[in-house]
Amino acid sequence: MLNQTVDLDRTFQALADKSRRTMVERLTLGPASVSELAQPLAMSLAAVVQHVQVLEACGVVKTEKVGRTRVCRIERAAMTAAERWMTDRRRGWETRLDRLGDVLNEVATTEEML
Amino acid sequence: MLNQTVDLDRTFQALADKSRRTMVERLTLGPASVSELAQPLAMSLAAVVQHVQVLEACGVVKTEKVGRTRVCRIERAAMTAAERWMTDRRRGWETRLDRLGDVLNEVATTEEML
Repeated sequence: MLNQTVDLDRTFQALADKSRRTMVERLTLGPASVSELAQPLAMSLAAVVQHVQVLEACGVVKTEKVGRTRVCRIERAAMTAAERWMTDRRRGWETRLDRLGDVLNEVATTEEML
Repeated sequence: MLNQTVDLDRTFQALADKSRRTMVERLTLGPASVSELAQPLAMSLAAVVQHVQVLEACGVVKTEKVGRTRVCRIERAAMTAAERWMTDRRRGWETRLDRLGDVLNEVATTEEML
């Protein structure tokens, strides 16, 4: 269900930039204003706003105007779907390596018996 | 160590395309030729080759000429680094939710005592 609503193309696109990942790292610890997100980054506030807009357009971040501040929050659905996709791939090759291990063990046992 | 050698920008960029993800899904099950990768995809072999080149340039796939066939394999280091980054983020917000749960429990206990 999750994968149907989350566009993984856009999620991975959003994460394909170091500055945006730094923002996501900060936001997974809790909501933050745009200026708080800007703090560790060596770039103009305008550039930070642009990155936040990309993150929001890609569905990774949600923003909300609270008084004069724009508060940013992580969209966990997108992050969860992307993580699940990565984990499923790892399970794929781990299963394959397990099967390879079984075959090698079988070969070793056969050789011992010869 | 892993993150120093893997360029996460490029890894996530490589994964920001459904066709390339389909190829990666296939390759986590074992090495495959370019034409095997092309099989489930509704696109020309030339387009598939281009995607494979992006995957290789991004360090997600390694290719090797074996006779007349180009064999593609997954580069696990890149995939592992990307998965680790995603998992670390989830741990971040899970820790935060745990702390929030503790605070709520504390509030409930205090209210019971009043």
